[in-house]
Amino acid sequence: MDISIDEARQLGIDVMAKCGLPADHARIVADHLVEAMMVGRAFAGLPRALALAETLKKKGPGGPITTVREDATTALIDGGDTNGYVTSLIGMDKAIALAKASGVGVVAVRNTWYSGRLAYYVERAARQDLIAFHTVNTTARVAPLGGIDRIFGTNPLAFAFPSEREPVVVDFGTSATTWGEVLLRKHTGTPLEEGWAVDEAGAPTLDAASALAGAILPWGEHRGFGLMLVAQIFGILSGSKVVVDDVGDFGFFFLAIDPGRFMDVAEFKRRVGDLAGTVTGSRPAPGGAPIRVPGQGSHAKREAARARGTVPIDEAVYHNILAELGRDSQDTRAGQT
Amino acid sequence: MDISIDEARQLGIDVMAKCGLPADHARIVADHLVEAMMVGRAFAGLPRALALAETLKKKGPGGPITTVREDATTALIDGGDTNGYVTSLIGMDKAIALAKASGVGVVAVRNTWYSGRLAYYVERAARQDLIAFHTVNTTARVAPLGGIDRIFGTNPLAFAFPSEREPVVVDFGTSATTWGEVLLRKHTGTPLEEGWAVDEAGAPTLDAASALAGAILPWGEHRGFGLMLVAQIFGILSGSKVVVDDVGDFGFFFLAIDPGRFMDVAEFKRRVGDLAGTVTGSRPAPGGAPIRVPGQGSHAKREAARARGTVPIDEAVYHNILAELGRDSQDTRAGQT
Repeated sequence: MDISIDEARQLGIDVMAKCGLPADHARIVADHLVEAMMVGRAFAGLPRALALAETLKKKGPGGPITTVREDATTALIDGGDTNGYVTSLIGMDKAIALAKASGVGVVAVRNTWYSGRLAYYVERAARQDLIAFHTVNTTARVAPLGGIDRIFGTNPLAFAFPSEREPVVVDFGTSATTWGEVLLRKHTGTPLEEGWAVDEAGAPTLDAASALAGAILPWGEHRGFGLMLVAQIFGILSGSKVVVDDVGDFGFFFLAIDPGRFMDVAEFKRRVGDLAGTVTGSRPAPGGAPIRVPGQGSHAKREAARARGTVPIDEAVYHNILAELGRDSQDTRAGQT
Repeated sequence: MDISIDEARQLGIDVMAKCGLPADHARIVADHLVEAMMVGRAFAGLPRALALAETLKKKGPGGPITTVREDATTALIDGGDTNGYVTSLIGMDKAIALAKASGVGVVAVRNTWYSGRLAYYVERAARQDLIAFHTVNTTARVAPLGGIDRIFGTNPLAFAFPSEREPVVVDFGTSATTWGEVLLRKHTGTPLEEGWAVDEAGAPTLDAASALAGAILPWGEHRGFGLMLVAQIFGILSGSKVVVDDVGDFGFFFLAIDPGRFMDVAEFKRRVGDLAGTVTGSRPAPGGAPIRVPGQGSHAKREAARARGTVPIDEAVYHNILAELGRDSQDTRAGQT
C-alpha cells in the first residue's frame, strides 16, 4: 500500500513522541525514516520506528548531549545514550561548521546507538559544498577474515562529494550481508547465500537461525576486511568499546573538508559533474544496462516519490504502527478521506 | 639471488642519480624501493628503478616543488612534474606537520606522477602517532562497473593507525588486477583470471594482449566501484585531470589526524593493539590458518630481511640494473667479496 509522505512523517513523529522523545528529536528521526522510504530503502523506513520504539522503551530518550572537548578543527560529543539519528545529525553538522570555518572538521560521537543510513548524513554535507566521510562501528556480529568469532559490526563507511549534478554518494557496509537480512530470511524461511555466514561451531551455513547463533562473514576478502577494521578503529577513536558487545556503545566518526581550500568550489563541482557524465555516457558492456554513478538511483527514486507525494509501506507494518499508537485503522482511514 | 640491503639501496641511488635526480631525491626513491623489497613486494622494488629511469629520461628530474597555498589545516603542493616518491613524502610530511599543530592536516599534491606503495606513506604517519588516509588516481585503464571504457586508474586507497603493537596498515587498489600484473602475464604467456578484463570491443578476455588494448575491470562490484570513484574524486580535488590520460597528471591526497584530540594517545594505541590481539587470538575457521591483521605480514617480512641483511632480487633485473649503470657484473661481484 501507499501512504502520503506527510502521513508517513507524522506517524514517525507520533511513534517517537510516544516513546518520550522531545519534539525536535522526534522530527529528526521521522525525517530520516521518511527519506529512507523515499529512496526505496523500505526496511530503513517506518518499520524501523517499531524497532526503535522497543529500544527506547528500555533506554528512555537519553540525553543530555554534551560537547566534551572542542577546538577549531575537532570536537568530541557525548550522546548521553541518545539515539544515533539525533546524535549523527549533531555530529555531522558540527563537522560541517568546523570545515566551513577551518577548512577541515573532524567530529567523534560516543555513547550513542543506531543511526540509520550513513548516506543521509554525508549527503547533507555535500549539499553544503563540502566533502564528507563518515563511518561507524556497530554491534559485534561479524567475524574477521578467516575467522568465526563475532568481533566486528557490519561497519559501514560513506563518502559524499558535491557536484554541479547530484552529489556523488558512496555508502556501504563491510559485511557479506546484514543482520536485518538474516533476520528477514529466518522470518520468511529463505536460505542464506553461500559465503554469508557460519554457525556457532564455525561451519558454513545457509540456515538463518544457525547464522544468528554464529557469525556473519566479512565482505570482499582482504580488501573488505581491511575496511571493516578501518571502520572499527574510527569507532574506537570515537569512544566505542574495542568490541561492541551491546547496543549503546557505538562510535560515530565524521569528517568534512572544504574543497575550496584546494580549488574554486564551482570548478571542483563542475569536474565532479564531468566525471559523473563521462561515466554515465561511456559504453556499457555489450547488452548491458546504462552505467550509473552511486547516489544517482536514490536521487531518482526520491524525486519520483516527491512527484507522487506518496511512499510505499508494507500493510502489516502500517497496521502495527497504528496499533503502537493505539489507533484504529478504520478511524484513521476514515479521517483521511 | 640475494643482495645486501646496503647494495640494493646504493644501486637504487646510483640509478636515480644517473637519471639526474639530486642526491636527496635519489635517496628518497631508493629508500622506498628497498623497503618494498624488504616487505616482499619485489615488483615494487628495484625492478621499478628501471621503469622510473625510462620515464625520467623523457621527463627529466622535474621541480621545483612549490607550496601553492597553505593555511593551518590544509596545503596544496605543485610537484613541478617531480616523481611521486619525492612529492608524496613531502605531501605526507606536510599533512603530519599540520595535524601535529592543528589536530588535522589535509594536503593535495598535483603535477606529479607514480609514487609506489601507499602503505609506505601512511605508515610513516602512524609511527608518529597519527591516523592517516591517502589516496591517488592513476592513468585511466579501468572501466566503470558495468562499462568497458577506460576512465579510472587502478586507484588505491590506504589507511594507517598507530598501535602499541605494529601500526595497522590497510592499503589496496580498487581494480580487479593491476596493469603490471597484466603486463607480466603477457610477458610470461599466462592467461588472465575471469572477471579481470575486457578486450577493445568490451568482450570478456583472458588474453593479456587483448586486455592491454581493452580495459581492466573494477573490483568488488558496487562497493569496490564506489571506492574507485572516491579515489578518482580525491585525485581531481588534488589537481588531476577528470580522466587521467597521461603519466604526469596524477592527484595525491593526504589526510592526517591526531587521535590525541579525542582520547589519550597511549590509551588509543592500547585499544588498537587490543583489537589486533583480539582478532589474531580469535578462532580461525575449522582447519584454517591463524588470523592476521593488515600490516602484520609486511612487518614480519621487514624484520626478517633486517635480520638477514639481504633482499631477494631477480637475477635478470640485477644484471639489467648493472647494465643501466654501465657496470660489469663480474667487477661488481668481485668488489663485494
